[in-house]
Amino acid sequence: MQNDDETKTLRVPHETMRDVLYGILQKAHVPETKAKVCAEVFTSNSLEGVYSHGINRFSRFLSYIDKGIIKVDHDPVCINRSAGLEQWHGQSGIGITNALACTERAMELASVHGLGCVALANTNHWMRAGTYARHAAANGYAFLGWSNTIKNTPPWGAREPRLGNNPLAIGVPYDESPMVLDMAMSQFSYGALEAAAMNNDKLSVPGGFDEQGNLTTDPASILKSQRTLPIGYWKGSALSLILDILAATLSGGLSVFQISKQEYETNLSQVFVAFNLKALANSSTMHDTIRQVIMDLKQSALANPDARLRYPGESAISTRTANLTKGIPVNKDVWNKIISNC
Amino acid sequence: MQNDDETKTLRVPHETMRDVLYGILQKAHVPETKAKVCAEVFTSNSLEGVYSHGINRFSRFLSYIDKGIIKVDHDPVCINRSAGLEQWHGQSGIGITNALACTERAMELASVHGLGCVALANTNHWMRAGTYARHAAANGYAFLGWSNTIKNTPPWGAREPRLGNNPLAIGVPYDESPMVLDMAMSQFSYGALEAAAMNNDKLSVPGGFDEQGNLTTDPASILKSQRTLPIGYWKGSALSLILDILAATLSGGLSVFQISKQEYETNLSQVFVAFNLKALANSSTMHDTIRQVIMDLKQSALANPDARLRYPGESAISTRTANLTKGIPVNKDVWNKIISNC
Repeated sequence: MQNDDETKTLRVPHETMRDVLYGILQKAHVPETKAKVCAEVFTSNSLEGVYSHGINRFSRFLSYIDKGIIKVDHDPVCINRSAGLEQWHGQSGIGITNALACTERAMELASVHGLGCVALANTNHWMRAGTYARHAAANGYAFLGWSNTIKNTPPWGAREPRLGNNPLAIGVPYDESPMVLDMAMSQFSYGALEAAAMNNDKLSVPGGFDEQGNLTTDPASILKSQRTLPIGYWKGSALSLILDILAATLSGGLSVFQISKQEYETNLSQVFVAFNLKALANSSTMHDTIRQVIMDLKQSALANPDARLRYPGESAISTRTANLTKGIPVNKDVWNKIISNC
Repeated sequence: MQNDDETKTLRVPHETMRDVLYGILQKAHVPETKAKVCAEVFTSNSLEGVYSHGINRFSRFLSYIDKGIIKVDHDPVCINRSAGLEQWHGQSGIGITNALACTERAMELASVHGLGCVALANTNHWMRAGTYARHAAANGYAFLGWSNTIKNTPPWGAREPRLGNNPLAIGVPYDESPMVLDMAMSQFSYGALEAAAMNNDKLSVPGGFDEQGNLTTDPASILKSQRTLPIGYWKGSALSLILDILAATLSGGLSVFQISKQEYETNLSQVFVAFNLKALANSSTMHDTIRQVIMDLKQSALANPDARLRYPGESAISTRTANLTKGIPVNKDVWNKIISNC
């Protein structure tokens, strides 16, 4: 979450944000269509509350373009196909547009083969995993996808980072706003730990080990030890490892440890799987099934009076509504740095 | 793990276990081929250390046959197909043989369509999720599959169970023993909590809430509150929910809350996805990629001198070797109850 301290935070209308980003991207020689898509995705990630992979990450994205790590005029190409399963090479293009192209291709394959998979090598950071799950689900497909990353999480039993936090995204069509899971394999991101440490907050649950090797909710101790936790301890550690192996083997691209030998986080491997729900015998009753599951969830007795029972992606809806009305909260320094590129 | 207390534990040679189970299943009117497969699967789950879904569950499996919940002479049927995506109805047949049939069908579909998915409704408990991932991976396919279950885990923010622990299995071919992830969405099973409480052991990490709503490592307090934890707190809660929704919508079968309205855990929904790795451009270098990832993992500095760095499924190999030599450890009461059926 953004710090809502008014002295540090601006509220930027989403159209303004989108137009400013679009202008900057054009100036950075991003081809027009891609500039439009990227401005839209950075803005809508921010609109839905994922600032870390929205507006807060835009300057780093620009610097990667500037350094030539992201090659804005390169497009992904298919290098191998076998019916519904394709391997693509991202050509170091823009992570967002590469991932959208592969999501759309997986949807096309699914419409022909019932389900489709595109495995993408040599791409760049896709920002928010949920973007692609949401895109597929908004178009009527169920979606399952994941990316590997640079190493940032110690495996269970180890004291140094060797695993990526390899975000997993799952999308299912539902109402006007699809159900979207977007889940990194680390319990807390470094960004979340840093924000909590800065505010002298404790974490709500253990987020890593202190330097003595004890589980702790103190973010500063974890930042010192660099020993963050995978979700579910040994379970998330194993899931992260096998998602990396699947991404690298299905795409023929790099795995986390190879990515981490590079100076920058680039040449990532990703997987996009789409399911053609229209082909199912029960497609007309699917919405009711989901609604009933959500109704059952909401009937649970609360753990405490402040608890909220939400389905994956539900909180994005209210954040979006609030930010559409009030503008998107942006740290003034972050915004000033961005508009210095105008 | 089995309690290795010699006064309570027998060591049963695996051939003996398999033959005893086979005999009992035949006596229970399980058709010969299915009886063979089930005896083999219960034995090999136990051989590899998954006693909870091996020998320790056999008596309950028998009682479900006896009650007519599991219909031993029913076979799964395909009710809808769209190229590589098929929906099957399990006809309340045996969970193990239904799941193996769907795994094999997903592999067949993958060999034609690059990847294949079978979604199975109205089936029974498949015992160990890893069985099917291992089967597909041993035959050269990557595999991704999951099942829903009866409700047994409170959603994040709730005080009563509404989620299943919905096990997820992922398999990748590797050497003679594939890499296999088999992961329930709860941090600890009830079986593990009960065993720890009986031995007055603390859990290694928080496993739930006490009645005051505090996270605790005391298994007895969690058994009292019934407030177990999903892995990664809010993350596993969301993952469990969406896996249930996917299983129910893809198969057209029941979701966790509907399953939980029945007297017994039956009519489960499951998903089986196989990827044809032989079709990939890089299939010849895949083994090397995986070996390198594992080598990198093993080079991590250990968190403590007793820590072990293992890839998913690795510990099953050593357990199997030990149990092949020494016999499978079985609680005497469990074994005596089983052989009373001979």
